[in-house]
Amino acid sequence: MVFRQELYLHQNRISMKTVKEQCKLSYDARLVPQQMPTDLKNNLLTDISKALTTQSNFIINENKKDIKNGIESKLSSALLDRLLLTEERLSQMAQSILDIVSLEDPIGTILAEWTRPNGLHIKKIRVPLGVFGMIYEARPNVTADAIAIAIKTGNAVVLRGSASAYHSNSAITETIKAVLEARDLNPNFIQLLEDVSRDSVKDFVQMTDYLSLVIPRGSSQLIQHVVNTATVPCIETGAGVCHIYVDKDANLDKALAIIDNAKTQRPSVCNSCETVLIHESIANIILPKLDTLLTTKGVELRGCEKTTHILTRIKTATDIDWDTEYNDLILSIRLVSSLNEALDHIAKHGTMHSESIISNNPDALETFVQSVDASTVFTNASTRFADGGEFGFGAEIGISTQKLHARGPMGINELTTYKYIVTGDGQIRP
Amino acid sequence: MVFRQELYLHQNRISMKTVKEQCKLSYDARLVPQQMPTDLKNNLLTDISKALTTQSNFIINENKKDIKNGIESKLSSALLDRLLLTEERLSQMAQSILDIVSLEDPIGTILAEWTRPNGLHIKKIRVPLGVFGMIYEARPNVTADAIAIAIKTGNAVVLRGSASAYHSNSAITETIKAVLEARDLNPNFIQLLEDVSRDSVKDFVQMTDYLSLVIPRGSSQLIQHVVNTATVPCIETGAGVCHIYVDKDANLDKALAIIDNAKTQRPSVCNSCETVLIHESIANIILPKLDTLLTTKGVELRGCEKTTHILTRIKTATDIDWDTEYNDLILSIRLVSSLNEALDHIAKHGTMHSESIISNNPDALETFVQSVDASTVFTNASTRFADGGEFGFGAEIGISTQKLHARGPMGINELTTYKYIVTGDGQIRP
Repeated sequence: MVFRQELYLHQNRISMKTVKEQCKLSYDARLVPQQMPTDLKNNLLTDISKALTTQSNFIINENKKDIKNGIESKLSSALLDRLLLTEERLSQMAQSILDIVSLEDPIGTILAEWTRPNGLHIKKIRVPLGVFGMIYEARPNVTADAIAIAIKTGNAVVLRGSASAYHSNSAITETIKAVLEARDLNPNFIQLLEDVSRDSVKDFVQMTDYLSLVIPRGSSQLIQHVVNTATVPCIETGAGVCHIYVDKDANLDKALAIIDNAKTQRPSVCNSCETVLIHESIANIILPKLDTLLTTKGVELRGCEKTTHILTRIKTATDIDWDTEYNDLILSIRLVSSLNEALDHIAKHGTMHSESIISNNPDALETFVQSVDASTVFTNASTRFADGGEFGFGAEIGISTQKLHARGPMGINELTTYKYIVTGDGQIRP
Repeated sequence: MVFRQELYLHQNRISMKTVKEQCKLSYDARLVPQQMPTDLKNNLLTDISKALTTQSNFIINENKKDIKNGIESKLSSALLDRLLLTEERLSQMAQSILDIVSLEDPIGTILAEWTRPNGLHIKKIRVPLGVFGMIYEARPNVTADAIAIAIKTGNAVVLRGSASAYHSNSAITETIKAVLEARDLNPNFIQLLEDVSRDSVKDFVQMTDYLSLVIPRGSSQLIQHVVNTATVPCIETGAGVCHIYVDKDANLDKALAIIDNAKTQRPSVCNSCETVLIHESIANIILPKLDTLLTTKGVELRGCEKTTHILTRIKTATDIDWDTEYNDLILSIRLVSSLNEALDHIAKHGTMHSESIISNNPDALETFVQSVDASTVFTNASTRFADGGEFGFGAEIGISTQKLHARGPMGINELTTYKYIVTGDGQIRP
């Protein structure tokens, strides 16, 4: 697929811009979004939202080229589905941009303010990052989302979408840039990389002169490649081996409903559940019910040895299972003799994404939330709630699984930084 | 010097621990500081402060070995001075640990809290990072400071000091570990790397299984080496080409006092001033005064062509000067025809550290603080105030010149992260 796309680019473009050229273009225009007042940003976003609908024919026609290429390259039906744009999906994209309009402008907020004994007044205010980079896979809606979030946060942005979505991403980007041009704004602060060759990822994540941040979203291979080669600061997102621990004092009906939801409601995403840890004292009661419930939904269960003594027809889980993000209708089950054993398992196999305990015992709940080292720790709720929208952030940039700058669901504030403004009247340091 | 130290290690240690072994030791003991209540942390720090004084003979004797090696290896007198420990310097170290005792415990603070329409209660609380790494050069006081800050913030820490300070750092670390052992606490969460060979830096900054953060402090070569090889998230610190812009509406007496202070009060540090930009309309008045003032203090001036027409005996600055952090009694001067020209110069040559404007014109001040992209922007004050202590943070970890996680002077909060605790009563995602 990459090869096909590169061929296309070579055939159709006389001079493809390099990664460096495009990053520099975005950087050189970074003051355009930085200096936009709140009203202008929101008016622009409203216009962009409209344009995605009025230009839907153009965008869908360009998308058809990607779909055609995708079918010829034998992309999986799941990938083709992610790639597909319809009137309905464009409406959803337009709506999610309106949601961003309604968020408060984060820029200029005073985060802290104090006066020192020597009279210096210190103010910590929220400012844009400058230029951020985004590397993502097939979904074209990320293109519109990322640009809208960039505008709202006063940032320039360089996008590196998948080669397989190049026509769709281009059509969306051009539609948005036309809105800026109609208002006499230089649209160069938005760049969609033309060079989508494999090697260009490495170039991109080392553009320290131009980028303040790069966010990879997609497969764990992509994310690891970025983390290992980036010299630009990056935020690791996504990998989720999430656990639900069913304590001996759990409400079993709630436990069953939560496991069902966390596994089957959308198994392909990072906050779905991969492993259930069950206190052995309740195993005989809950396991058969869980088996019946999930088997009817097509879930394959894999259990530890003790589990297979109760559910005799299921597969035995191997060591690999405990570290696998299935992204599929598969669930591993392990019986534990204590809360501590569950905590040890999570410490060893968790990815610091989201973990949940089901219990009515306040001590167990407290020990669990204090001990588990994860971005989000749930009590008596589905891990599927680890999500910017569900947190009320109104925009989804990704879920950070690292600890620096941003952790867990990232809202628009996480695409900003701060600066200190120190006002004096002649102070010198003694 | 590195060679000599390696030789020493080979001669004196039967089995030196590897970087990986020591990072794992710290990681495996990371719950020890995490679970310490505030009182225990403060009592420990008070005991450590005392121990640095009571064990001063031991520490100073070990320091003498480093000094002896340093003299034999012909270390510069500046480096030897940084390395030297005296009773007085140990007292200062002890005092700075008591300053850390008096800071509020950052761990457990609720940063935000809200309830969603579905009843989920979301709490964002401050937690330790886990294990952080610190790479630094000759100053042994960083060893005590970093360990004290680690304890206060509930973090484990792995230190990688300079080979030339190995005996001093070991003595300080052993003194502190003895305090922990006296209270039956496992001191393994504090590790001073035994392998101080050149190659070990790279190993260290790629310990993603164990470290959440690595902070390099020292020369810009060291920092760039870390930034380029690290896969562990790192915070760039230190490089500072700081400017003072003297506007046409400046109070000239204040301007002279501030430039003098920012250049000569401590020229070797990152927040000292390297370049002064002067509005050309006041050049004839201020330049001769500046020349007289600074020449008596031994400062070498280097000017742009226009400057040398007024101060005819000074050197002409080359292109290299505008990007040089002298860390010395040298100052470059450039005349500008407008505030915008000053802003352009700073955008091109600044290192996003600290910049200052001297003016009585409110519009000029506002434009300057809004436009300059630096961690700290001063009006009518010396850049030397860009400092954790001067900001009132009570502890100095470094000054970040990047935009992610921490920017500018870093206090103890910057060595923490957060997690979300989400409390439900059976919620599933629709």
